[in-house]
Amino acid sequence: MKKIIPTYDDVLRASERIKPFAKKTPVLTSKSINELCNADIFFKCENFQKVGAFKFRGAVNAIFSLNDEQASKGVATHSSGNHAQALALAATIRGIPATIVMPENSSRVKIDAVIGYGAEVVFCQPTLKARETTLEKVIIQKGSTFIHPYDNYNVIAGAGTSAKELIEEVPNLDYVIAPVGGGGLLSGTSISVKALLPDAKVIAAEPEGADDAFRSLQSGAIVPSLKPNTICDGLLTSLSERTFKIISQNVSEIVTLSDEDTIRAMKLIWERMKIIVEPSSATALGILLGNKIDLKAKRIGIILSGGNVDLQKLPW
Amino acid sequence: MKKIIPTYDDVLRASERIKPFAKKTPVLTSKSINELCNADIFFKCENFQKVGAFKFRGAVNAIFSLNDEQASKGVATHSSGNHAQALALAATIRGIPATIVMPENSSRVKIDAVIGYGAEVVFCQPTLKARETTLEKVIIQKGSTFIHPYDNYNVIAGAGTSAKELIEEVPNLDYVIAPVGGGGLLSGTSISVKALLPDAKVIAAEPEGADDAFRSLQSGAIVPSLKPNTICDGLLTSLSERTFKIISQNVSEIVTLSDEDTIRAMKLIWERMKIIVEPSSATALGILLGNKIDLKAKRIGIILSGGNVDLQKLPW
Repeated sequence: MKKIIPTYDDVLRASERIKPFAKKTPVLTSKSINELCNADIFFKCENFQKVGAFKFRGAVNAIFSLNDEQASKGVATHSSGNHAQALALAATIRGIPATIVMPENSSRVKIDAVIGYGAEVVFCQPTLKARETTLEKVIIQKGSTFIHPYDNYNVIAGAGTSAKELIEEVPNLDYVIAPVGGGGLLSGTSISVKALLPDAKVIAAEPEGADDAFRSLQSGAIVPSLKPNTICDGLLTSLSERTFKIISQNVSEIVTLSDEDTIRAMKLIWERMKIIVEPSSATALGILLGNKIDLKAKRIGIILSGGNVDLQKLPW
Repeated sequence: MKKIIPTYDDVLRASERIKPFAKKTPVLTSKSINELCNADIFFKCENFQKVGAFKFRGAVNAIFSLNDEQASKGVATHSSGNHAQALALAATIRGIPATIVMPENSSRVKIDAVIGYGAEVVFCQPTLKARETTLEKVIIQKGSTFIHPYDNYNVIAGAGTSAKELIEEVPNLDYVIAPVGGGGLLSGTSISVKALLPDAKVIAAEPEGADDAFRSLQSGAIVPSLKPNTICDGLLTSLSERTFKIISQNVSEIVTLSDEDTIRAMKLIWERMKIIVEPSSATALGILLGNKIDLKAKRIGIILSGGNVDLQKLPW
């Protein structure tokens, strides 16, 4: 039977596999943010990861897990976000082709970034159906392996390496908070936390305007993300069966917040820590600042998922 | 005779003195910026220093160099910039009063920051003359010690600790570049570089719209900064006799650049490195990007002086 849920051993293997290529990102703290939240917060900075997001970890792990025959035919995905860039760069590093299906209305900056990392871009209509059929055609034509942005065994194991590094550096955390969109980062994070810190709790932060994961956990069945409306462009997607299962087992609570609280947290991180994070990353601090959950006097790890923002269009 | 020029021994003493209070800031690199400049660049991140600027090093060193009697009467300065905040926080740490003379048209954000760090603010008309006479009154009334933003023995020695840390971490640099305004950072930097890396060259970056240091070195006498016009609000001031002397001895070249090149470098640092730097900090990379000087294939240290910017008013 094919295993669908990665274990911590898979995270360990991913960690070895990606070591030559991915950055060991720093863990930063801010005295003034600690004072504001009355807690000790440790920020794991995936905004400093290659391509500016944790996604690189999963993409490298997935691509370097392929055997030579699979690899020779390349990889493909549909994405207009960080996963597209991550897969493009990881494929270039292994020296294999990558095809990225992108909606034709994607921003020029994103298209150029993907091409710049060495991938081929195939455009499609901006609907989920068009994405899927276009991707299917690519896979049939080229025999490429589809690397899903989050519903993928090796992508999840790769994503878990960030929390592993965080806990190795700060071993006595009470809580770890990650944002949730499709659930890849949250799944990987929760696998590492449960293995390394069995007493610590995993909390997820989710925008109110895309609260499908929150409602899925409440109802016990996947609620799709139909018309998400949030500034957090990395958190628009729905859970898959796989990530739903992992999250149901490992995550204590999903806490939702308004975009207003997210933007406030994002600006605070920029101002106080002098680092650039994207809105999705700021949700975890946002639930603390907005008093959506009381973690006073606790030691909290936060995964800052990425730092790709359009500097011409800031939300303040 | 009173020594006016600090030596590297003073930098070493400053380093010990500030150690309990100042951050050892990280040195970051960027593969893509290295490729763009065809050089190996090591960024010393004083934007991550307390109060968001290297100024904290000099302020702490100056304040903790006071004897108890001097300290009891407090410190004073006139500044609306990073030095004001640095002095305010350093005084609070030592538990002594600080009085900051600020022009009455200073921004609310800056005034609040200084008060937030625990200093008393005394307002004056927005002219240099008013600043000086107001400061004089404060000093006569309170007996406070004047800590000049850069024309101060201990402030310069403190500023030199940043380059010391940089070189200890990256010992084989060919060049070190720092911005120049009043010359405190450049002086301290040059003292450390000359002591630790006698063969390395110190280069300064200066905005064309405030090129008094460039013209001073050209003419061999201090040219005052009369009507500076640049986005680099940390680099508006003129050299002092002391900083002019140090810079004349130690600095190979002052390279000027347009604000356009500075803004381009600033945006590149934000986008590629995901860190926030202020315009003054970006000048050093700006002279490389703008091909104002050819340092191809060299190993270059850059002091990123600070990260205090108004996020509501970005220059792009």
